[in-house]
Amino acid sequence: MKLLEDKITAEGKVLPGNILKVDGFLNHRIDVEFVMLLGKEIARRYEGCGVNKILTIEASGIAVATAAAFYLNVPLIFAKKHKSGNIADDVYSAGAHSFTHGNDYVAVVSKEYLSADDTVLIVDDFLALGSALECLMSIVEQAGGKVAGCASIIEKGYQGGGDKLRAKGVRVESLAIIESMETGKITYRPDEGELL
Amino acid sequence: MKLLEDKITAEGKVLPGNILKVDGFLNHRIDVEFVMLLGKEIARRYEGCGVNKILTIEASGIAVATAAAFYLNVPLIFAKKHKSGNIADDVYSAGAHSFTHGNDYVAVVSKEYLSADDTVLIVDDFLALGSALECLMSIVEQAGGKVAGCASIIEKGYQGGGDKLRAKGVRVESLAIIESMETGKITYRPDEGELL
Repeated sequence: MKLLEDKITAEGKVLPGNILKVDGFLNHRIDVEFVMLLGKEIARRYEGCGVNKILTIEASGIAVATAAAFYLNVPLIFAKKHKSGNIADDVYSAGAHSFTHGNDYVAVVSKEYLSADDTVLIVDDFLALGSALECLMSIVEQAGGKVAGCASIIEKGYQGGGDKLRAKGVRVESLAIIESMETGKITYRPDEGELL
Repeated sequence: MKLLEDKITAEGKVLPGNILKVDGFLNHRIDVEFVMLLGKEIARRYEGCGVNKILTIEASGIAVATAAAFYLNVPLIFAKKHKSGNIADDVYSAGAHSFTHGNDYVAVVSKEYLSADDTVLIVDDFLALGSALECLMSIVEQAGGKVAGCASIIEKGYQGGGDKLRAKGVRVESLAIIESMETGKITYRPDEGELL
C-alpha cells in the first residue's frame, strides 16, 4: 500500500536493535483517519471470505482491528496478555514471544467468544517472527474455528515470519512489507494486489 | 444513553466484588458497530469545544476512543501502562490505581505528542473512582495543555469518582451512569442530555 509505505518512510524511525518506531501514527499517537483507511484496505482484501470475527491482541493492534471490523461489519475480539501460565479453565490460551518488547507472554481468549462456527481474520499491527499470529491461530484452532487468514500493517519481510506462514498455506496480507531497513533507507517488497 | 443502558442490562454481568462485566460488547469481544455509535455520541457531546486530540489509556479504552476520534476527526493518543516508576525523561507520567484490576500503575505519554497548544478530550471505558481520568488529566496539565473534559462509557455513579471531578468543575460526560447495581437489577441515573 503505497500510501502506507510513504508514511512509514516519512515518519518512521529506525532504532538500534532492528526496531522500527511508528509511534507517530500507529502505536502511541494514532492517526485515526489514516488507520481507518488501513482497516478499510484489510476489509477489501478479505471481503467475500466468510469472515465473521476478527481476532487481535492488546494493545496496539486494537485500533486498526477496530477499523477493519467496522468495514467488514463483524465483531472484534482482543486477546488479553497474561504474564504467567496461571490460566483459568474457561479460556483458550497460547504462548508467544514479543520481538518488540523482548518478553514472553500468554494470550488468552474466553471460550465464550470463539467457537467451531467461526471463520476468523487475525489482525495485528506488526509482523516480525510471526509469533503473535501463530499464537492467535492456535487459539482459533483450539476453538475448532477456521482461520480465514492474517493481516498485518507492517511486516518485516526479512525476519521471515510472514513467509514461513505463507509456506504453510496461510493467507497473510501485509499492507507494507519491509525487505531491508537502515537509518534513512527503507526498502519495500512490491505489492501486486494493492489499490492504494 | 438508553440504547447503552438497555445493552448493559441485557448483557452485563454483575460479579462479586462490585465488578460489572461487559466483556460481551466492550472489554473483550467488541461489538464494533455499537462501539462506533458510542464514539459518535461522545463526539456529538464535545463538538464545537475545540478538541484537537483525544487521550485514552491502554487497552480496553482504545476501541471506543478510536471511534470518538474518528467522528471528531482528531488524532488519538493512548497512554501506556508501566509497572514501575522507572520512567524516561522524554515522557509525561502519572500514577493511578485500577479498581478493576486492583493494582497500581504509571501511565506514560511521550512528550512529542502533547503540548501547550492542545485541547484534549479524555476518554475511557469505565469510570469508578476516577483515578485513570485524574492521572490522564495530570499528564495533559504537565504538557501545559487544556482538558476540554472527560467522557466515559460506563460510570459507576455510586463510587463517586465522576461527581468528585464535576465538583471541581471538570466536564464529565458518561453515556450510562449506574446508581446501584446488584445481580438482576441495575439502576441508572437519568440523563437529560441524551439523544439516543
